[in-house]
Amino acid sequence: MASIFTKIINGEIPSHKVFEDDNYYAFLDISPVQKGHTLVIPKKEVDDIFDLDDETLAGLYVFAKKVAKGIKAVFPCNRVGHAVIGLEVPHAHMHLIPISGLNDMNFKNKIDLTQEELAEIAKKINKQIN
Amino acid sequence: MASIFTKIINGEIPSHKVFEDDNYYAFLDISPVQKGHTLVIPKKEVDDIFDLDDETLAGLYVFAKKVAKGIKAVFPCNRVGHAVIGLEVPHAHMHLIPISGLNDMNFKNKIDLTQEELAEIAKKINKQIN
Repeated sequence: MASIFTKIINGEIPSHKVFEDDNYYAFLDISPVQKGHTLVIPKKEVDDIFDLDDETLAGLYVFAKKVAKGIKAVFPCNRVGHAVIGLEVPHAHMHLIPISGLNDMNFKNKIDLTQEELAEIAKKINKQIN
Repeated sequence: MASIFTKIINGEIPSHKVFEDDNYYAFLDISPVQKGHTLVIPKKEVDDIFDLDDETLAGLYVFAKKVAKGIKAVFPCNRVGHAVIGLEVPHAHMHLIPISGLNDMNFKNKIDLTQEELAEIAKKINKQIN
């Protein structure tokens, strides 16, 4: 069965898309810990990110760098931290989170954003990447 | 001035080395949150990991994958999670941490290991990579 993320890639489940190319897809986390909190995933469906072939794994981070620069342009921060934990959804995914302090990346501190706010954020980041 | 990590790479400050190649260096975090908690760094000294050129950034993750497989072989886990936060030391570094539950990657839960235990762990992981 397709993962929820594959359904998002295929447009069967809506998402606030930030950017995509042939191999990767970036969209806003709907349960963000910071404004601009983005998920980056390979279109190839694997559970553990380290099971990706070298080329796809390497490309994922070059893609993520592009997205991170876009996030930082919209949400000025010390840097864009990233984490791959991936126990919740069996489709490798990387969190990109603008941070200025260690606590900014605490997954227990969720913030509330409306669908309209998320749509606006996705649009702004996308504009910085393109 | 050279960062503390550059001093580690150069052997001016001792570390429990897990693995290295021409461009990257892996060693145990001396303040681990799990047994096998490893830091992976590029030998090139940059503060923000996303300031690395594409090739070095891509190679870092291919190197990290190799190290992660070694960690998982020694410390069976659901997966090796990774995080780049990097606010403490201005030399890009990635945490590789064997995890089975979300709380296994909580940076506030440190464990105590002796230098002898760390040396033994580094040796075991290195053996799995080579």
